[in-house]
Amino acid sequence: MKRIPVMEIFGPTVQGEGMVIGQKTMFVRTGGCDYSCSWCDSAFTWDGSLKATLRTADEIIAKLEEIGGERFSHVSISGGNPALHKGIGELVDKLHDKGIRVALETQGSLWQDWFLKIDDLTISPKPPSSQMKTDFTKLDQIIERLDTKQMSLKVVVFNDEDFRYAEYVHERYPHVPFFLQVGNEDTVTGDNDLLIRTLLDRYEWLIAKATDSTIMNDAKILPQLHTLVWGNKRGV
Amino acid sequence: MKRIPVMEIFGPTVQGEGMVIGQKTMFVRTGGCDYSCSWCDSAFTWDGSLKATLRTADEIIAKLEEIGGERFSHVSISGGNPALHKGIGELVDKLHDKGIRVALETQGSLWQDWFLKIDDLTISPKPPSSQMKTDFTKLDQIIERLDTKQMSLKVVVFNDEDFRYAEYVHERYPHVPFFLQVGNEDTVTGDNDLLIRTLLDRYEWLIAKATDSTIMNDAKILPQLHTLVWGNKRGV
Ligand code: SF4
Ligand code: SF4
Repeated sequence: MKRIPVMEIFGPTVQGEGMVIGQKTMFVRTGGCDYSCSWCDSAFTWDGSLKATLRTADEIIAKLEEIGGERFSHVSISGGNPALHKGIGELVDKLHDKGIRVALETQGSLWQDWFLKIDDLTISPKPPSSQMKTDFTKLDQIIERLDTKQMSLKVVVFNDEDFRYAEYVHERYPHVPFFLQVGNEDTVTGDNDLLIRTLLDRYEWLIAKATDSTIMNDAKILPQLHTLVWGNKRGV
Repeated sequence: MKRIPVMEIFGPTVQGEGMVIGQKTMFVRTGGCDYSCSWCDSAFTWDGSLKATLRTADEIIAKLEEIGGERFSHVSISGGNPALHKGIGELVDKLHDKGIRVALETQGSLWQDWFLKIDDLTISPKPPSSQMKTDFTKLDQIIERLDTKQMSLKVVVFNDEDFRYAEYVHERYPHVPFFLQVGNEDTVTGDNDLLIRTLLDRYEWLIAKATDSTIMNDAKILPQLHTLVWGNKRGV
């Protein structure tokens, strides 16, 4: 059994974003990332501020069952970049054996064969404002191997340049379901009323950009629901 | 050509709720309803306060193209209850001929053969707080004839009794994708900050109900995004 570095396990709660938005789910957040996005809202997974615990698939499932009981049939794996960890394949198999569906999000910088087993796979390449650079040759190879019925592309947008990047990504992979997501510019504030107002204003701005763009006719434009409800609080 | 009573045509904007939440779309709202829900947020479609205009499918499409230009590939038909109108079948065919996908919402009180053509069909039976009574024999007949890949059930929840009704509906049709939606108790207020706060609190309450319920393990729990962004304003 390959062990997986785990930062936190929590739920049941709702999936706040992307292709299964609203889904009742448990969360497993893995540690480690090959990126260091300027606005990362999960920097504690890779910046050394918190330590991950190495766990086997069985240990992760035991923990999920301990806190979720009979109250879940869906698990979301996030990070960091879960694609760093070979052991996730075994975790997915064991969850499937129990009739549990699995969603996973990764930025599309690395391939794992277990991508093919994920029920709801979100590939979220990072726009210019992240200060990261997308390797499109790599991304082409990844997307080519996936079934578009089980996956989607999601781009977080902070500004006009990010929006143009999102248009480029959507046009490069026109057959892949495409999601635009509002960026959260303040991942530390505790002033939830201000945060909500800002995020809804940014959402309105993003809707206006997308409704103006003929390239985005078939896009879905979404906020992060968990941030609207719980602000920057973790583990909910 | 059968004419359709139309209350308003607007867009492009986002679909704020349900199975295609976030989708960039145009809206066509039809007039008339066989229900009169206590909390109806579209009462102007049936209470006589506004008059519908009878339009042919071609006239509706001309209007969509006039205001949407090249900026749409998806149309949402809502009401009122659009299932009152035979003429929608022709409208859907003509939209499909142009490569435009069609979503439609109805409460499930009436059948139309054109239901089978809708790309994203939401059946939204009304809970006890609406003061309406669901005819489950009728609903059984409707759901039996539909392909579950193109449809979903959605129940708006205002209180505990509504939630039990939602559990009953989900258990009666376990194979149908199921959505819980936060009810909007104040469809007239212009105080958007208060409305947002109330709706997010109610959403948090509904999430807690759903995460506690083993019956809701595979549900999606969603707010109305357009109400969070634009309050009770119409035509956005
Ligand atoms: S890829 Fe994701 S986890 Fe990694 S740094 Fe960027 S936002 Fe953070
Ligand atoms: S079925 Fe819909 S449109 Fe008709 S009264 Fe109820 S909420 Fe209003």
